[in-house]
Amino acid sequence: MDKTNLKFTLEEYQQRITKTRSAMQKRGIGLLIVSDPSNMAWLTGYDGWSFYVHQCIVLALDGDPLWYGRGQDANGAKCTVFMEHDHIIGYPDHYVQSTERHPMELLSSIIQERGWGKHSIGVEMDNYYFSAACYASLTQNLPNATFKDANGLVNWQRAIKSEKELEYMRIAASIVQKTHTHILERVEPGVRKNELVAEIYHSLIKGVDGHGGDYPAIVPLLPTGADASAPHLTWDDKPFQKGEGAFFEISGCHHRYHCPQSRTIYLGNPPEKWRNAEKAMLEGIDAALTAARPGNTCEQVEDIWRKVIGKYGIEKESRCGYSIGLSYPPDWGERTMSFRPGDKTVLQENMTFHFIPALWFDDWGLEITESFIVTAKGAEPFCTTPRELFVKN
Amino acid sequence: MDKTNLKFTLEEYQQRITKTRSAMQKRGIGLLIVSDPSNMAWLTGYDGWSFYVHQCIVLALDGDPLWYGRGQDANGAKCTVFMEHDHIIGYPDHYVQSTERHPMELLSSIIQERGWGKHSIGVEMDNYYFSAACYASLTQNLPNATFKDANGLVNWQRAIKSEKELEYMRIAASIVQKTHTHILERVEPGVRKNELVAEIYHSLIKGVDGHGGDYPAIVPLLPTGADASAPHLTWDDKPFQKGEGAFFEISGCHHRYHCPQSRTIYLGNPPEKWRNAEKAMLEGIDAALTAARPGNTCEQVEDIWRKVIGKYGIEKESRCGYSIGLSYPPDWGERTMSFRPGDKTVLQENMTFHFIPALWFDDWGLEITESFIVTAKGAEPFCTTPRELFVKN
Repeated sequence: MDKTNLKFTLEEYQQRITKTRSAMQKRGIGLLIVSDPSNMAWLTGYDGWSFYVHQCIVLALDGDPLWYGRGQDANGAKCTVFMEHDHIIGYPDHYVQSTERHPMELLSSIIQERGWGKHSIGVEMDNYYFSAACYASLTQNLPNATFKDANGLVNWQRAIKSEKELEYMRIAASIVQKTHTHILERVEPGVRKNELVAEIYHSLIKGVDGHGGDYPAIVPLLPTGADASAPHLTWDDKPFQKGEGAFFEISGCHHRYHCPQSRTIYLGNPPEKWRNAEKAMLEGIDAALTAARPGNTCEQVEDIWRKVIGKYGIEKESRCGYSIGLSYPPDWGERTMSFRPGDKTVLQENMTFHFIPALWFDDWGLEITESFIVTAKGAEPFCTTPRELFVKN
Repeated sequence: MDKTNLKFTLEEYQQRITKTRSAMQKRGIGLLIVSDPSNMAWLTGYDGWSFYVHQCIVLALDGDPLWYGRGQDANGAKCTVFMEHDHIIGYPDHYVQSTERHPMELLSSIIQERGWGKHSIGVEMDNYYFSAACYASLTQNLPNATFKDANGLVNWQRAIKSEKELEYMRIAASIVQKTHTHILERVEPGVRKNELVAEIYHSLIKGVDGHGGDYPAIVPLLPTGADASAPHLTWDDKPFQKGEGAFFEISGCHHRYHCPQSRTIYLGNPPEKWRNAEKAMLEGIDAALTAARPGNTCEQVEDIWRKVIGKYGIEKESRCGYSIGLSYPPDWGERTMSFRPGDKTVLQENMTFHFIPALWFDDWGLEITESFIVTAKGAEPFCTTPRELFVKN
């Protein structure tokens, strides 16, 4: 392939594979089937909107990984992965969404042929792209293999970011920050939500300083008024109203690396309860970001946040953050660490998180969030977007 | 809830449920767990970007369906589903992406409590949102139930569209058609791909005639030059080049209903082989659309297409179309019917398809596609976008 397309050096891909193999060996896994598109991309560079059909990376303990996917996507693999073309295997189209045959049947034969049929095989049991049918097919067609749940195995290797990864995330940060500025300028009573989303997308994809934007793994979320108590509603074509607040949870994305950030805008004069929640939230964010330094655990960061908002009489059940980086739909989180009770992961330098201390009440919601890097001095936010409840009168 | 948010009448939802129950009974299924967000929306109206955590609709043979999902998304369910609030069940946040507990454990208890623990339970085995771990959890926690593969069961009920569904698809069609006009105006050598995608998104979401656009289930696909042999590559920030062709596979979307369409644009004077492929393609499309009438089968339509392009010495392995309608990422297809050998589904009035006779060669590709409704007189295309290879000199 034209290796100039690669987003990282060959050395970086090799380091990732070495790290992953070491984790496989610790878990007694001889062959890893990687179905998560984010993990596929991280290990090999593969990129394409082809995850709506079955595909995976097959990683043994030696040799280059194999890309396995739909025949028509093999060309996309040739354009994007670091491996030579003989490590790219396409399956015929009659395996696609068929009721008679499953792509994992053919993969099982390939695994048999290569002498891996008696291996301990790791599979991502709880991934979107590893369905119950995939597992049923593999276990049936590889009766001599043993299967282990390797969910999150690769995701965990991704926790600490390289300099190049941080560079991409910083570009994503510039994109999201620019877009929040644009939103604040443009939102006002009477503007229809879909019209503003059209501009948000325009800004996110256009990018900044010659760096193009990629599609974020989650669409812009901007519930307003009472709907803002429902964090994952998307937009409609109704106008923004005076006397309502809306939050804008969006992410910049560059080369599939994300920097999400949310800001809330009140159209009018915010009620006292909004100002109180803002005060609690900002104090909580300050405390949590200071605590987010190497050596502290995820649950300690959450505990500090919880205590601050508790002083203000506010409780929040849901987690207040998660790790971020490379991602594909439907989630821009890394699905490893969360800021919540019980998560005893110790923070290390160059881990990256989205701190999202959202407060969703019965009929309104406030979201002011920060994505950050863990540094020796505590959290270093990716963005300098003013941290406050925005008000437009 | 405020039922004015509903996209369809209560009667239409009830008809859908009745139809689905009849299919359940034919397959001996007493309880259906619906994980596909498109099926969830079609049965109940549920809408939200929450499918990155486990959620489902539980449908018994009587009573209203249950919505089951993350606690923080229960508010979104209250805003969007037709059922009363007591049919909305949220699970606590410590079930989210946890290594210790799975949301299907709690669902199993609910199923037990309601006396469904010995039922024959249908699950969507090969859906993105029904992971291997979901199935493992349910089978372990409901040892007295029997499980049946109900993959596609609801999807098949969606094949024939109602008038209201067609109305939404026609709006989606206006949106995609307007966007193709815009692309043709704007594309030229030197324009960067991400800049054009920014405008494509703007147009798709802004919508037409006061009807807002929703997010399509697949991002714009626009590989150029040699990359156009790889159908699912997304964009980068490189400029379009003179002497290259690019195809633009995009979809309008309104209330989650899709109308995909692709056109190819050649920047410069197209080589003879492009013109030959165009001729074969247009003749093939004509023949296939004429054949797409009630009584003919999917494979007959494909066979007619294949014979036409065969005359021109062209072969295509992959399917040349699939059914469309309501959808969520990662796929805008309905995952039921395909135009390909072996698909003996008989076409009926008001079925809707994306006919995509794409030709991907080794180092170039041509995509001219049509979405259409099956009518008594044959296919009625949704759009009137000129059907030809666009050329910009």
